[in-house]
Amino acid sequence: MLHTHTHTLTQALVQPATLTSLHRLPPALLLWKRSNSCSTVAMYDGSESQNQTEQNVYNLIQTNGTWSRRSPQQSQQGEGRLSAAKMVLQCRDLLDEANDALLWGHVGDPEELRALRGRPGPVKRFVVMDETVHALYGARVARYFEARGVAFRILPLPTTEENKSLELVAQVLEEVHAFGVDRRAEPILAIGGGVCLDVAGLAASLYRRRTPYVRVPTTLLAYVDASVGAKTGVNFAGGKNKLGSYVPPAATLLDRGFLRSLPRRHLANGTAEMLKMALMKHRGLFELLEAEGPAMLSSSFQSPDRVGAEEPADAATESTRVAIETMLEELAPNLWEDDLDRLVDFGHLISPELEMTVLPALLHGEAVTIDMSFMLFVARERGLLTAQQQQRVLGCMRGLGLPVHHAACSLGLVRQALAGRLKHSAGSLRMPLPTGLGRAEIFHDISDETVCEAYSKWNQELSAPEDS
Amino acid sequence: MLHTHTHTLTQALVQPATLTSLHRLPPALLLWKRSNSCSTVAMYDGSESQNQTEQNVYNLIQTNGTWSRRSPQQSQQGEGRLSAAKMVLQCRDLLDEANDALLWGHVGDPEELRALRGRPGPVKRFVVMDETVHALYGARVARYFEARGVAFRILPLPTTEENKSLELVAQVLEEVHAFGVDRRAEPILAIGGGVCLDVAGLAASLYRRRTPYVRVPTTLLAYVDASVGAKTGVNFAGGKNKLGSYVPPAATLLDRGFLRSLPRRHLANGTAEMLKMALMKHRGLFELLEAEGPAMLSSSFQSPDRVGAEEPADAATESTRVAIETMLEELAPNLWEDDLDRLVDFGHLISPELEMTVLPALLHGEAVTIDMSFMLFVARERGLLTAQQQQRVLGCMRGLGLPVHHAACSLGLVRQALAGRLKHSAGSLRMPLPTGLGRAEIFHDISDETVCEAYSKWNQELSAPEDS
Repeated sequence: MLHTHTHTLTQALVQPATLTSLHRLPPALLLWKRSNSCSTVAMYDGSESQNQTEQNVYNLIQTNGTWSRRSPQQSQQGEGRLSAAKMVLQCRDLLDEANDALLWGHVGDPEELRALRGRPGPVKRFVVMDETVHALYGARVARYFEARGVAFRILPLPTTEENKSLELVAQVLEEVHAFGVDRRAEPILAIGGGVCLDVAGLAASLYRRRTPYVRVPTTLLAYVDASVGAKTGVNFAGGKNKLGSYVPPAATLLDRGFLRSLPRRHLANGTAEMLKMALMKHRGLFELLEAEGPAMLSSSFQSPDRVGAEEPADAATESTRVAIETMLEELAPNLWEDDLDRLVDFGHLISPELEMTVLPALLHGEAVTIDMSFMLFVARERGLLTAQQQQRVLGCMRGLGLPVHHAACSLGLVRQALAGRLKHSAGSLRMPLPTGLGRAEIFHDISDETVCEAYSKWNQELSAPEDS
Repeated sequence: MLHTHTHTLTQALVQPATLTSLHRLPPALLLWKRSNSCSTVAMYDGSESQNQTEQNVYNLIQTNGTWSRRSPQQSQQGEGRLSAAKMVLQCRDLLDEANDALLWGHVGDPEELRALRGRPGPVKRFVVMDETVHALYGARVARYFEARGVAFRILPLPTTEENKSLELVAQVLEEVHAFGVDRRAEPILAIGGGVCLDVAGLAASLYRRRTPYVRVPTTLLAYVDASVGAKTGVNFAGGKNKLGSYVPPAATLLDRGFLRSLPRRHLANGTAEMLKMALMKHRGLFELLEAEGPAMLSSSFQSPDRVGAEEPADAATESTRVAIETMLEELAPNLWEDDLDRLVDFGHLISPELEMTVLPALLHGEAVTIDMSFMLFVARERGLLTAQQQQRVLGCMRGLGLPVHHAACSLGLVRQALAGRLKHSAGSLRMPLPTGLGRAEIFHDISDETVCEAYSKWNQELSAPEDS
């Protein structure tokens, strides 16, 4: 039970607020604002804009492959710099007709908003929706835009991992082109899980060489993972996300209300990426997932109604916030992935190969968990984790209903995945490994022998009879 | 005869050299280096890199919609900032086996170059070539790579405007994926005209979310236009360059030797974009094209052998250099086209519609010239040009063998093109118009009446009997 902390939301647009974070950890310095039913969780680097609001600039420093924030006063020359250009907004009741966010949440500047509202003719929005999400929320989205006099078109698509292709992107583009959008003023909205956000994001990044888009994640996985960062992508030639772009969304609108309709397996799927960030850099988040994970799954990550902003935050609010913040810390200074030493790659060395091999048997987060589970054995083999720490993490995974082993994850697949990665990683296998609970480092020297030994133990210990 | 000026090439990597430019104009402050058979014409903003070499930073200031350079000392806060990340290299004998540029020209940092050369296994290069260029130079490119022990694959493609599609990009991607490249170390080479560079550039920008690419323009148009800037693109749904990305090449290698095999009509085609820059911001360049254009066409823009660096530059060297520099000045601070007021759009308001309508009757530069010719009449109607200036420009166009009128360029097409542009230009028709020879401004208030009146005069004066 760790959520005995509070945070203060301020009314100021760019004034950093004091967040008393999970114990043992330095307070986060993220920007945090609240207006109506939305609060800005974070503003991160779009980096291409020539105009930076100096007030929004803070600094990131890198130590041992991980990033942390620093106020400008503390920073030294040569350190990473993070400016605010794009927004992640936390919203309630996003589809409520009274809530501006879906239509205007991407516009940060009040003057720009006034200008956009004042343009002649109806406002236009093109919406890409996953077809399952459309069946659940399509009518409400339509009502929202109708109530606001918006000319809109909703395109429902089967955005599954199997359909995540350049052809699906071309289909979106045909429809966008037929509908017609102003690439300056009319962002494409993507409402759905990670595949939907990735496909719509790539289509938007290509249309007229860059049309803004807004991400509305409806799964927990997309909420904590695909919502953040600049990546878009599709699968190609049997490879996961082999094509894509680095184009950040104009805004990401986070509303946990969508999670109410998510099956438990898909909720658990999302906790895998939260667990990744926890293991890599936040012990408090790990302990929260360990202690409160099952209860959060049961409540679909909903929060109890709070009396006021001074009330302590609940586990669902706190765990998702920390997951996103830690993810932003790692991604923001490295939006284009020039730096190959990435802690966020934990759980993603073997899992792409595994996920594509058994498609659609494993959800993304499930494949990631199997990868992480194996890496715990590599870390243990290397002497980075105690047996007790290793078991504790495996217990947490099981408590979240996540798989820790899969028969298709053979030694051959593991070695092939690592060899493929080596080929694309400038000649060195960069392996993020936990060095404790909530601490990690990148290792460049993990031998094939260590991998094989770890695999043998992992397979022996975790392969259940029904699994083989 | 204006090329009575000299410029100095320095050995220093980043030391700005003094260039005595065309008379009447302030000296350019571009970086200029020389090493072996290549000299850096300019290094422009990749802008996404977190690491900027401070020495390479200079500043740009914008006045009346046009950009000019300023040394850092002179600059004020809030002005545009240009850092050097990507390179434009001027080369001789690019396909000479002794010339490093084709293989390593994109690597600016000597230490990085050493590391790349030292990697185990053969160096790999994937080459996209226009099929006509391949027929002329394919064997030499193959010999170049064979002589250097490079594992290479050349993909010849019919890169015509009609084939410039997402399907062609997908074809390149299939081949790239089958061949296998390291997205950190093995850039895709594009050798051909603008369509080839655009298609290969888009494929590279998509592959693994961004693989570096190198542009080797083989037409004059691509040399002065597609070589510069960050745009890639393909046609879509009947619209020119409706899909694409803003991803600058790792390097552009300029070798005018390729122009020897270019038919005169295609050389003239390239002078259209040079004339555009001349009319917008460089009177000296206009006068050079006016006086020396036909002779430069006859010599295929080749330079006589020069005795030493102190020799005055010839017209072909000087005119292409100024065309590229002025283009860079306009493009570099606005690589993502956030700023809609773009002088480089002169000649590109009506021509995309015209070019696609009569495809393949008009080459790009021909359509651009017809657009510019019409705009001279708009400028004249608005009182911005004297009759004599207008006639002088038309004379220059004719001297270069460029068309100044086309029957398919009807008033209907003109109005439709401008209306389409208005729709995508934040509610205001931004029209760059010459306000003299080598001076221009963006006009936001050109009325339909002025357009119609100008059209009537343009059509009456320039439509030849054989044209209708």
